[in-house]
Amino acid sequence: MEKAVVVFSGGQDSTTCLLWALEEFDEVETVTFLYGQRHELEVDCAKKIADDLGVKHKMIQMDLLNQLTENALTRKDMEIEEGKVPNTYVEGRNHIFLSFAAIYAKTIGAKNIITGVSETEFSGYPDCRDAFIQSLNTTLNLAMDAELKFITPLMWKDKAEVWEMADQMGRLAYIRENTLTCYNGVIGDGCGKCPSCKLRNEGLQTYLERRAVL
Amino acid sequence: MEKAVVVFSGGQDSTTCLLWALEEFDEVETVTFLYGQRHELEVDCAKKIADDLGVKHKMIQMDLLNQLTENALTRKDMEIEEGKVPNTYVEGRNHIFLSFAAIYAKTIGAKNIITGVSETEFSGYPDCRDAFIQSLNTTLNLAMDAELKFITPLMWKDKAEVWEMADQMGRLAYIRENTLTCYNGVIGDGCGKCPSCKLRNEGLQTYLERRAVL
Repeated sequence: MEKAVVVFSGGQDSTTCLLWALEEFDEVETVTFLYGQRHELEVDCAKKIADDLGVKHKMIQMDLLNQLTENALTRKDMEIEEGKVPNTYVEGRNHIFLSFAAIYAKTIGAKNIITGVSETEFSGYPDCRDAFIQSLNTTLNLAMDAELKFITPLMWKDKAEVWEMADQMGRLAYIRENTLTCYNGVIGDGCGKCPSCKLRNEGLQTYLERRAVL
Repeated sequence: MEKAVVVFSGGQDSTTCLLWALEEFDEVETVTFLYGQRHELEVDCAKKIADDLGVKHKMIQMDLLNQLTENALTRKDMEIEEGKVPNTYVEGRNHIFLSFAAIYAKTIGAKNIITGVSETEFSGYPDCRDAFIQSLNTTLNLAMDAELKFITPLMWKDKAEVWEMADQMGRLAYIRENTLTCYNGVIGDGCGKCPSCKLRNEGLQTYLERRAVL
């Protein structure tokens, strides 16, 4: 009886991970972190998908991150700019989220924590890299005398390969239509203009062209 | 110009660390975590000591820990019992506190984080052990592309040796009279009956007897 917790935002990556987890594990729960996101729509989106798929959906309030640092994702008055490290970056944010996810997993008796982080598409966030995840895994097991395991199905995939994974599960259309990645809060194919939409849509295009050739 | 952040509760151990840090570093700030402690007195105590010593005192609200786990320190209706792992234990609590302290340290440009954890007196808390601290240090530097350093002056000291350290700094009386360790919220020598008082007072007795012999 293998149980898993999926760190879940309602975006393309974490929804792909959730669908994958439902194929791999006997029991799956999701955890969503609320931290003053620009788009409460994102949370509604996550809720709807979790309900669609019949999985338990735990919300964890993380507004306390604002006590430490200020940034574009949590301060609505700041603009989002392009660049190597986007100013949407909350220093150590993923470290904190994954730590809470692991503590929650231990509490409910789940051994596996699944996160859609990717080193290929890591956009300059150091706490999405594989070396970090491995180190955090060791640290948390020491912290709690635990045997938890972080699983990162997308770590070495680019966006085209994430779409391929969705397609292989027969879920490309579902993910394309129901997930939210767009910084401007437009569900599905998004606004098409923000960095997040560009990455997502270019990946989809690349995958669809690749598939057409086969 | 070396700057340090001291994780500070107003208890014997963290006050000893704070006094030590003030001797070792050019600039020192304290961080106190609020997490529904039984004794708000503890926070008043921490504030008073920080004011006495003229150091900046940052409070970080951590009530969100209650979202994950329930326990004696945060649930006032539960009894405290003795045992290997006390039921005052919040799983992964120290991991979370030290992670926040490190993010805060990076934000203010401090390289050093000082914590009074001790493996000698660790009372069964796995996230007070040296192996954990070392691993967390590596993880956080990976998470933030940082060069932070955790410093644990009390790691291998028993309570008698912590009193000795206070005495060597000429601060034994100050620490004895102004700090709060007692589970029942009695400042100074405490109620004398709870496990925390017993540990503290036996340590003091041991040290004073040792000193008398010299």
